[in-house]
Amino acid sequence: MKKVTVVITARASYSRIKSVLQALKKNKLINLEIVLKASALVDNYGSILKYLEEDNLDVNYKIYSLFNTQDISFQVKTTGIGMVELSNYLRSSNPDLVITIADRFETIATAIAASYMNIPLVHIQGGEDTGNIDNKVRNAITFLSDYHFVSNKEAKAKLVSMQVETDKIFNLGCPSIDLVNIALQGKIDNDSLYNFYSWSGEKVDLEKEYIVVMQHSVTNEGGSKAQIEMTIKAIERLKMPTIWFWPNVDSGTDGISKGLRLFNKSNPDFPITFLKSLGPQDFLKLISKSRTLIGNSSVGIRESSYIGLPVVNIGSRQEKRIRARNVIDVDYDSEEIYSAIKKQLAIKNYKKSTIYGSGDSGEKIANQICRILEL
Amino acid sequence: MKKVTVVITARASYSRIKSVLQALKKNKLINLEIVLKASALVDNYGSILKYLEEDNLDVNYKIYSLFNTQDISFQVKTTGIGMVELSNYLRSSNPDLVITIADRFETIATAIAASYMNIPLVHIQGGEDTGNIDNKVRNAITFLSDYHFVSNKEAKAKLVSMQVETDKIFNLGCPSIDLVNIALQGKIDNDSLYNFYSWSGEKVDLEKEYIVVMQHSVTNEGGSKAQIEMTIKAIERLKMPTIWFWPNVDSGTDGISKGLRLFNKSNPDFPITFLKSLGPQDFLKLISKSRTLIGNSSVGIRESSYIGLPVVNIGSRQEKRIRARNVIDVDYDSEEIYSAIKKQLAIKNYKKSTIYGSGDSGEKIANQICRILEL
Amino acid sequence: MKKVTVVITARASYSRIKSVLQALKKNKLINLEIVLKASALVDNYGSILKYLEEDNLDVNYKIYSLFNTQDISFQVKTTGIGMVELSNYLRSSNPDLVITIADRFETIATAIAASYMNIPLVHIQGGEDTGNIDNKVRNAITFLSDYHFVSNKEAKAKLVSMQVETDKIFNLGCPSIDLVNIALQGKIDNDSLYNFYSWSGEKVDLEKEYIVVMQHSVTNEGGSKAQIEMTIKAIERLKMPTIWFWPNVDSGTDGISKGLRLFNKSNPDFPITFLKSLGPQDFLKLISKSRTLIGNSSVGIRESSYIGLPVVNIGSRQEKRIRARNVIDVDYDSEEIYSAIKKQLAIKNYKKSTIYGSGDSGEKIANQICRILEL
Amino acid sequence: MKKVTVVITARASYSRIKSVLQALKKNKLINLEIVLKASALVDNYGSILKYLEEDNLDVNYKIYSLFNTQDISFQVKTTGIGMVELSNYLRSSNPDLVITIADRFETIATAIAASYMNIPLVHIQGGEDTGNIDNKVRNAITFLSDYHFVSNKEAKAKLVSMQVETDKIFNLGCPSIDLVNIALQGKIDNDSLYNFYSWSGEKVDLEKEYIVVMQHSVTNEGGSKAQIEMTIKAIERLKMPTIWFWPNVDSGTDGISKGLRLFNKSNPDFPITFLKSLGPQDFLKLISKSRTLIGNSSVGIRESSYIGLPVVNIGSRQEKRIRARNVIDVDYDSEEIYSAIKKQLAIKNYKKSTIYGSGDSGEKIANQICRILEL
Repeated sequence: MKKVTVVITARASYSRIKSVLQALKKNKLINLEIVLKASALVDNYGSILKYLEEDNLDVNYKIYSLFNTQDISFQVKTTGIGMVELSNYLRSSNPDLVITIADRFETIATAIAASYMNIPLVHIQGGEDTGNIDNKVRNAITFLSDYHFVSNKEAKAKLVSMQVETDKIFNLGCPSIDLVNIALQGKIDNDSLYNFYSWSGEKVDLEKEYIVVMQHSVTNEGGSKAQIEMTIKAIERLKMPTIWFWPNVDSGTDGISKGLRLFNKSNPDFPITFLKSLGPQDFLKLISKSRTLIGNSSVGIRESSYIGLPVVNIGSRQEKRIRARNVIDVDYDSEEIYSAIKKQLAIKNYKKSTIYGSGDSGEKIANQICRILEL
Repeated sequence: MKKVTVVITARASYSRIKSVLQALKKNKLINLEIVLKASALVDNYGSILKYLEEDNLDVNYKIYSLFNTQDISFQVKTTGIGMVELSNYLRSSNPDLVITIADRFETIATAIAASYMNIPLVHIQGGEDTGNIDNKVRNAITFLSDYHFVSNKEAKAKLVSMQVETDKIFNLGCPSIDLVNIALQGKIDNDSLYNFYSWSGEKVDLEKEYIVVMQHSVTNEGGSKAQIEMTIKAIERLKMPTIWFWPNVDSGTDGISKGLRLFNKSNPDFPITFLKSLGPQDFLKLISKSRTLIGNSSVGIRESSYIGLPVVNIGSRQEKRIRARNVIDVDYDSEEIYSAIKKQLAIKNYKKSTIYGSGDSGEKIANQICRILEL
Repeated sequence: MKKVTVVITARASYSRIKSVLQALKKNKLINLEIVLKASALVDNYGSILKYLEEDNLDVNYKIYSLFNTQDISFQVKTTGIGMVELSNYLRSSNPDLVITIADRFETIATAIAASYMNIPLVHIQGGEDTGNIDNKVRNAITFLSDYHFVSNKEAKAKLVSMQVETDKIFNLGCPSIDLVNIALQGKIDNDSLYNFYSWSGEKVDLEKEYIVVMQHSVTNEGGSKAQIEMTIKAIERLKMPTIWFWPNVDSGTDGISKGLRLFNKSNPDFPITFLKSLGPQDFLKLISKSRTLIGNSSVGIRESSYIGLPVVNIGSRQEKRIRARNVIDVDYDSEEIYSAIKKQLAIKNYKKSTIYGSGDSGEKIANQICRILEL
Repeated sequence: MKKVTVVITARASYSRIKSVLQALKKNKLINLEIVLKASALVDNYGSILKYLEEDNLDVNYKIYSLFNTQDISFQVKTTGIGMVELSNYLRSSNPDLVITIADRFETIATAIAASYMNIPLVHIQGGEDTGNIDNKVRNAITFLSDYHFVSNKEAKAKLVSMQVETDKIFNLGCPSIDLVNIALQGKIDNDSLYNFYSWSGEKVDLEKEYIVVMQHSVTNEGGSKAQIEMTIKAIERLKMPTIWFWPNVDSGTDGISKGLRLFNKSNPDFPITFLKSLGPQDFLKLISKSRTLIGNSSVGIRESSYIGLPVVNIGSRQEKRIRARNVIDVDYDSEEIYSAIKKQLAIKNYKKSTIYGSGDSGEKIANQICRILEL
């Protein structure tokens, strides 16, 4: 029996690892350990505690490392303290393998803790390319890691081109597609859809047509408030029922929050529902039923490709990710955004694409981890 | 006037940046700021405070971040706290550019602090290749950095092959060669040579023939005590006057220290002098006058190439660095080590090589930094 | 010339030290150094940066140590990191004396840093007695300190009774009364009063009659949301123009914030102005012109005694502080609160009391510090 | 069932809590949790891991918080990080009561973590009086604590005089006397005595007469090297078989270590055995068989009173502790130290004193804790 420790730092990361966790948990030769850290534990930024509970996944340790986000140093400090506390925990827990996910700023803490303590390290979703500080983080983690589970062929090619050893790279698809697969197969439970926590505004009726917006700050650009105002303007003009997701914790988040609060204040009757967080399954059901997904979330590129969902992708945040035909890219310009949404609304659905996996990545990754651990 | 902040974390790094610091200090358009951190401040591991003072370089801030080194978590914790404190300092100091040096574990703290706070980051000596955790650290820093000053052609080629943008890579040689150049030109001051601090043992007479040993622990291998015993055995058999440098702070250092203390205890009359630290100039004079340099320090590969000094390089620590003809590589085996030293003692000196620079890197790098800052 | 370092961690502390800072700054024998930490630097919780700037007081170092406040561990973590960073700074700054103010949770970090590093420590405002965790913090700091500047006779008696050496205790009054003194003497600038930042709601007309509310969470009680609702109910019933101050950062703050947001949402037309922070002088002008001050702030007990302002003090937070005749104490009960406000509104003003000082404490304290430093 | 968490930070603290831990462990209503921190985990400073293992006491969490001890800031930093990590652990562990022991610098981290998180806190051995920074720490912890278990009548009287509530103070003796009691009753196992780890020097024959030295640095005095040299001189002159304990981790420890190493180097044949650490039982057997105990350890005052052991107590470190007749106090003066040892060697043994407890404190304290927890 070998111990595998998975460290999760944010809401978005959970979707990209959930099916792997479930496959590892079922395996009798693996002692699965889950550590939550930083924004994954904080309600304001999307605590995932309740989703893990619903999914019957036990949390072994929690690291409350998030600093107040108002000063630009908070990302460094959160990472530094997360590193101190995680290394202390790993010292006693003594795993045979550690898994870190994707490219958020805190994930490098996991990579440094494991590599400096000579614990074999798996990185999920290296080799992608986005227009952001995330690129730096992701590539730095790649070079601290021992094994690389990428989500698509292009990502593998990228790592190979960076001189990563080919036999340490495994393209087994993105586990988030597994969840899309289940969500699309399963029957949609209308009641739970109506249970979404609505922050304010007029509640959206999900039986009717609606759109979804997810727009995060782009940490190395500044001007998040001006950016979000372009999107707000387009949405305002559209006057369609809208579900808007609260941005995750990053420098610039406060600019976005401020923009949204002002909009909400001055349009109290607009048919909009603000959401902070949603269980992965409910979330996928929600977007798959929507007419268009707007913003700069990677969900628009990744999960939406498998759904065939029309997407309007704004700005530079996803600029280098490979994409299927369902995406229209636009600039931070309310006119462009508006027109693109209009175009997408005219289309019912695109054809399902498997560029990001075919729905069974969790099992495949768990099996490959067993081979790495010689189980 | 633009502010350039250089963060130095260890004795060895100082040699690789000193001539750059001097060139930057002379430049009227640059406000040079020096931050010392971790082992660069601790006597046991080679404090460099007095060398900076001798060289008239002011220290602007000191970060005492070194944890007790007995637990394997100390490297992660030292890095984490160094990151927290450095980001706090940079927040107020607000530099236009940050420089991080080489590949020691603490240097990634500098890289993360600068990159997460959107401060342009220069990395000195990326693209090299050693057989160690240092490789992971060095490459991770490369991908967090914006500009890369490498020390040789092969290093540049390595970075290019890893998809680093060519126009961000500058091969201007290694600043440590500048110091070799000065040391070799200057007249040797016998008095200062006799002022070396000797930890114990019989003092070595520098007018006579002597050898120098510098062997650090290899952090991802373990067994540092067994490794050092092989070297000790060879030296013991050789019975030649020996200058032995105390290892720097790393996991495994305690194993080496223990081996050396035992040897010293049981051979009180052996002609050996233990040194903890030496000013860069005295150090270079000392090795350039020695008959052979033994161990696994990068000095054997780098500075010694320009001197043409006979070197016996032990084990894997420098295994992938490019080397001139002056180096004989051996395994952790007292017999092999002994024979190689004997061979090198038969040779007076090798021909000078410029693979690591031609002695004017400090000026060249400072000039390029000005161009980057548009000065 | 001797160096005196003052560490300020919160908005409230600034009022209690400002006149001391001004007196120390004027003194040619004193090198005054000001360090800001934690919530004193964060807009959401009352950054004081702009007030120091307005008062021409330079900030020498800033320590961004505040953690996200949603988890109960944040006070310990903020204190711990504040301690790490402050000790590092003091190590280089090397003051002859450190001053820590009052009883907020972060202030013990200053006390531990100074006392463990053998730097003489002055504590401002020990010996008071409140019904809260603040008591524990305040008394613990007393025993880490070398000199004690208390604000009233009872506080001195308290310290003496705790076996603190009498000749180390100085009762020179509370520096916050100095500010009251100036505020009451000076002419009120109506324009600046109208410049207050209003968070939302109907703006209060300061020419007409109004009341002020300041209610913080009581950290060791829990139930801050239920407590605040009682106050809200009373205010709602009163329907008088109201200025409401946002609570400072403490466990339980989120409960209060939530209560206030809900009230604001459901009473969009209520004549209420929410304020986050105000310069000390404007703040004192504001309350001195108000008809009644309601809540549990120490301002109601301390500054208001000198003004003779009618106060309704709610709950246990100030329960053991000595008070003048201007205060009516009530429980967390909307009926009681309502009646007490009504009673106070019937009174114009109470007689000025000097139990907390006579308006010249800053000078006196600065002089005594010079004597301690043998200047 | 209620959870009681005991945090141990140093070798010396273990003796003062061991019998309490054993009594709590036997109790079916108590879930005992043990956390080790800082120097309690580091070999150089007396790791207690193996003693807990021998005593069948499980360690639930380990916090590696010790910084490198060469800079004066290390005590603050170790305390700060210890606080961050302990609060994080307690957050998940969620005990009903926390116990902190005595007065070492790290213990205040435990007190702050528990009190700021509203967890009831027990302090073992408040109210004592020593000539040191320990006094500040001890008294500060008293005011952060909810319950006080003192070791003697005078300590209780001290706390009462400091206005601590009488009904929260319990004088149940010092648990370290329980160990003395067992050690004196039990048969001495000569074999284990001969198994002591000897650091160097001529091994002492325990069948013959010998003396024991334990001298720590006095952190707020400086000059630890000069102080230890006085003791060394007296011991050198005495030429008696000597067991010398290595000092614990404190500012100034390096001065003592240096003095001892020099002595050992220049007197290779002196009959001296250096010890770093010993199990509590072996330790007590060792000192109880010695002719005199010399130095400034509290063991000379406390445990030795119950044994009736002749003690020479040097300097200010224990100056205000109550003592039985067995102690002669001397200054840092080799002549005085020498004479006092000579006097004590003339005496066989003093009469047993129970001023520090009668050997059953562990049970009594555990029972009182149950009453506090209403079990």
